[in-house]
Amino acid sequence: MSRKIIIDTDPGQDDAVAILLTLASPEELDVLGIVAVAGNVGLHHNANNARKIVALAGRTDIPVYAGCSRPIRRALVTAEHVHGVTGLDGPDLPEPTVPLQEQHGVDYIIDTLMAAEPGTITLCTLGPLTNIAMALIKQPAIAERIAEIVMMGGAYFEVGNITPAAEFNIYVDPEAADIVLRCGAPITMLPLDVTHQIQSTPDRLAAMLAIGNDSAKAAHAMLTFSETFDLAKYGWTGAPLHDPTVIAWLLCPELFSGRQCNVEIEVASELTMGMTVVDYWHVTHRDRNVNFIRNGDADGFYALLFDRLARLP
Amino acid sequence: MSRKIIIDTDPGQDDAVAILLTLASPEELDVLGIVAVAGNVGLHHNANNARKIVALAGRTDIPVYAGCSRPIRRALVTAEHVHGVTGLDGPDLPEPTVPLQEQHGVDYIIDTLMAAEPGTITLCTLGPLTNIAMALIKQPAIAERIAEIVMMGGAYFEVGNITPAAEFNIYVDPEAADIVLRCGAPITMLPLDVTHQIQSTPDRLAAMLAIGNDSAKAAHAMLTFSETFDLAKYGWTGAPLHDPTVIAWLLCPELFSGRQCNVEIEVASELTMGMTVVDYWHVTHRDRNVNFIRNGDADGFYALLFDRLARLP
Amino acid sequence: MSRKIIIDTDPGQDDAVAILLTLASPEELDVLGIVAVAGNVGLHHNANNARKIVALAGRTDIPVYAGCSRPIRRALVTAEHVHGVTGLDGPDLPEPTVPLQEQHGVDYIIDTLMAAEPGTITLCTLGPLTNIAMALIKQPAIAERIAEIVMMGGAYFEVGNITPAAEFNIYVDPEAADIVLRCGAPITMLPLDVTHQIQSTPDRLAAMLAIGNDSAKAAHAMLTFSETFDLAKYGWTGAPLHDPTVIAWLLCPELFSGRQCNVEIEVASELTMGMTVVDYWHVTHRDRNVNFIRNGDADGFYALLFDRLARLP
Amino acid sequence: MSRKIIIDTDPGQDDAVAILLTLASPEELDVLGIVAVAGNVGLHHNANNARKIVALAGRTDIPVYAGCSRPIRRALVTAEHVHGVTGLDGPDLPEPTVPLQEQHGVDYIIDTLMAAEPGTITLCTLGPLTNIAMALIKQPAIAERIAEIVMMGGAYFEVGNITPAAEFNIYVDPEAADIVLRCGAPITMLPLDVTHQIQSTPDRLAAMLAIGNDSAKAAHAMLTFSETFDLAKYGWTGAPLHDPTVIAWLLCPELFSGRQCNVEIEVASELTMGMTVVDYWHVTHRDRNVNFIRNGDADGFYALLFDRLARLP
Repeated sequence: MSRKIIIDTDPGQDDAVAILLTLASPEELDVLGIVAVAGNVGLHHNANNARKIVALAGRTDIPVYAGCSRPIRRALVTAEHVHGVTGLDGPDLPEPTVPLQEQHGVDYIIDTLMAAEPGTITLCTLGPLTNIAMALIKQPAIAERIAEIVMMGGAYFEVGNITPAAEFNIYVDPEAADIVLRCGAPITMLPLDVTHQIQSTPDRLAAMLAIGNDSAKAAHAMLTFSETFDLAKYGWTGAPLHDPTVIAWLLCPELFSGRQCNVEIEVASELTMGMTVVDYWHVTHRDRNVNFIRNGDADGFYALLFDRLARLP
Repeated sequence: MSRKIIIDTDPGQDDAVAILLTLASPEELDVLGIVAVAGNVGLHHNANNARKIVALAGRTDIPVYAGCSRPIRRALVTAEHVHGVTGLDGPDLPEPTVPLQEQHGVDYIIDTLMAAEPGTITLCTLGPLTNIAMALIKQPAIAERIAEIVMMGGAYFEVGNITPAAEFNIYVDPEAADIVLRCGAPITMLPLDVTHQIQSTPDRLAAMLAIGNDSAKAAHAMLTFSETFDLAKYGWTGAPLHDPTVIAWLLCPELFSGRQCNVEIEVASELTMGMTVVDYWHVTHRDRNVNFIRNGDADGFYALLFDRLARLP
Repeated sequence: MSRKIIIDTDPGQDDAVAILLTLASPEELDVLGIVAVAGNVGLHHNANNARKIVALAGRTDIPVYAGCSRPIRRALVTAEHVHGVTGLDGPDLPEPTVPLQEQHGVDYIIDTLMAAEPGTITLCTLGPLTNIAMALIKQPAIAERIAEIVMMGGAYFEVGNITPAAEFNIYVDPEAADIVLRCGAPITMLPLDVTHQIQSTPDRLAAMLAIGNDSAKAAHAMLTFSETFDLAKYGWTGAPLHDPTVIAWLLCPELFSGRQCNVEIEVASELTMGMTVVDYWHVTHRDRNVNFIRNGDADGFYALLFDRLARLP
Repeated sequence: MSRKIIIDTDPGQDDAVAILLTLASPEELDVLGIVAVAGNVGLHHNANNARKIVALAGRTDIPVYAGCSRPIRRALVTAEHVHGVTGLDGPDLPEPTVPLQEQHGVDYIIDTLMAAEPGTITLCTLGPLTNIAMALIKQPAIAERIAEIVMMGGAYFEVGNITPAAEFNIYVDPEAADIVLRCGAPITMLPLDVTHQIQSTPDRLAAMLAIGNDSAKAAHAMLTFSETFDLAKYGWTGAPLHDPTVIAWLLCPELFSGRQCNVEIEVASELTMGMTVVDYWHVTHRDRNVNFIRNGDADGFYALLFDRLARLP
């Protein structure tokens, strides 16, 4: 039986690959809708990119919504230096043909959760947590109706990427992350600790290109574009691949290992703003609110990704 | 020509008097709707109280909405020790007959502002600023359509009431206050500095009762109840009257004097959380974002209030 | 019987007047030593100024020490815009003839307290609290040997002068103030709330000049210089007089009224850095660690000051 | 030619091994004095332990001083759960015979630096940085006379041990660490990132015991006692060895590798208090104030340690 999910995202090349991986797995994942949020680039681009991706995958039946165009309290920080001006630089994708839904993404999330059986819908978040936090404030009753929140975000032993202490998705809207992490719903976090292990090496990129269909070719072009930044920074032979780990964890949790522990968000000090403080060694008595994934099987991950991309147009 | 306003409120005895003062002034103030927010007591009570007040004033044509039941990031702090369990202890008011509107108060604010001519609607806030902040995040375009935000909240020379550094309305949702104060719309703030000058002395309460109609009698019962707390605390002969100053300022700004200056909200430190840091002496170069009202004419205020209450049923 | 005191100071025109007031009152106050600290201007000028003042008063028997030239953690902020380049602009005072003591001021404070009977020495602080805090860290045993700390510093209803939330002496070294306020010794605080009431009006300055001796003439020249800044800022007819209130309180506590309450220092947030958060209304359960003086009798103060200045050379 | 050093320490079993390693290397390291500071346990125990260690090594010619018994601003946090009640539980060491020096450790540091040629004395810190910070505040001129500060403290990829975000030595006195890191002197930091690589496995402990002299036997007993805590926490086969890395780096820097980068200390937020925020990837433009050592050669380290311990009585 497939799992019902809503994808909240700011595509982003790696978000796009995550969406393709999802759409290639309809037997396991039933995508109710995709909601865009401001993050890697502005909301307009992100929503547009989401619509291009569903078209690429031949799944224009999936509704795409626009959520919040700004973080809760802080000015929007974007990452055009990583993702390019459109957020999806790399491949030449046609302009989207399916319309953006009129309903606000936050209301779509609330209404969908309130209409469904409690515990039946999983939220997959690939960007800043603004939309989820806004839904929780506007309608707190959704908290106990969410089956699970599976998020790409945060870091502990890998500490930070956008600042020395913070990962990008959390840093962009730390108040939102704080609200979500304290909401009481089950949460699984795929942090930099994992995604830095899932590297798109030249061999893997070549194998992706060799799949040969349009989706795989576009994914190859996207990752080839976006990895430039991380390769220069870390001096690695392959770039980390972030957002698809969320979907891979849903499909094959046995590829990953982690630990239930407390995670809190720094929102008071600029120096460490947006840090995900993980009590990995249980040195405090704080509530164990997050399934914090520390390790992933890179070979297993790429085998899964390639197998699924091959099923797309 | 009357000014179109939306009242955002957490009634509260003094909120109730503010609403009565508004409804008694239809030639100047056209109340489009009343939106409740969690604050003095929980949202349910506050929305219920708003519906009782419009009935008391014979104005069941005014729609009442429920907004947010929780602050943006912090746990709700209420003030039953001041306002009683219902938030409106004191008079015996009949249960409301008019229904609560189905639309969420945040969406009502957004839709009303987006549908009207820019610069034609004033937001009057008598409680925590959660609803206004949420509307600004969900639809940032409203910021430049708001004619003005006139708020009861904050303090500078009077410093704080709920903590040594913070006034209640701001303290309950400091992140919301911070969002609103930085939104760019014109803002007038009626702080404790003013409201502590507008004291409901025994003479003034007696004069209110003597008006003799139901509304004045209820207002008298409400203020008699709520003033007990402040009298014990400050050792004054009359209690401060807070929220009606917002409406009085709209009706007779000449009763008040203030200064355009920078106001920022402390959101980083628990010791001073929710403080309204007012650059009253212009010692910084920060933007002068608020018309900060420092003084009010108490006799003029009460003359206005009694004149208007007398016009109600 | 006279009270033994050590004066810790950063003169400063008003510090100088405070020292003159002290030296004119030998029957009540036995000045063991004067310790300079960085504050209004740098340490070198402050130590030099202290030596000039004892010479002016004909009391070169009083040893002058130099303490710390920098605050504990923050970069030194000075106030040449108020006090002039030397910190004591205004009168023409001869260069000091008595030497600066070789011992570091912090060690002088420690050694003097440790050598005396516990509870016999009062510390009078007219500047940032760096020296006192350093002494407490280096030798914690002094805390229970201090008879009392009487400090000019802080503000509550008058809020701030150097920033919208902080008074200068506290702001320059907030960590030091925090350390001192939590040391357990009895503390009396003379804040801006009082000193803004003790205004050097033209009439009072004229009366000071009319005393006619060198000390009074120098005091007149100093206050005439330094008041320019505050007159421009506040639009008052007289400038506040700060540091002499400490000495006046020691001489005539009946001129002042205050309240025992909790005072804590903000050290975590830049917006409110150095604020003295006074729980004046006892709304928290925090320890009542400070005798917070709120009101002073300006006429009584100036009568005392003039009477004593007249006794000097 | 030997390098002149002062050791500032809170022994501590691993501090003790660091001191033994130093005293066994007189041709390279000329220990001018040892200064105790409050940390692992209280100052009294730490000073006592230092005197026991110099006796054990047959070096009672080295003067031992007591510095500060409390951190600058925060209440002392100790680690008896790791080190035992005395801080040096494990071996049976005789009570010290050499007296504690009378001079305060902070003054010893200042006087020694001011009397020597600039740039000739290295400070080796094995505990909280209170003494060094106090010396810098009391006599800022020492900053440019320090040859180098080599400290055990901090963490980046290993994040924290006493809290999820902070290493013990920094956490105990974060203000002190902040003062030291911004003092301008050359700084080398040996963080948990390195010390977690230098594990005292059963094989290594057995090799240490086999050296057979009193010093090695005592070191074996100390490490056997103290490693219990970390073994239980991390599930490793050997415990990390912290403080001796400072001395090993002085003796054989080629055993280590690191990077010059910015390190700042979190002092504003309780959640991340004492974190060493390392800009390891140069994502900010902050000053590169620290030589941050990330990796160490564990086999090379233990070969060095055993070689030197064998030279002791």
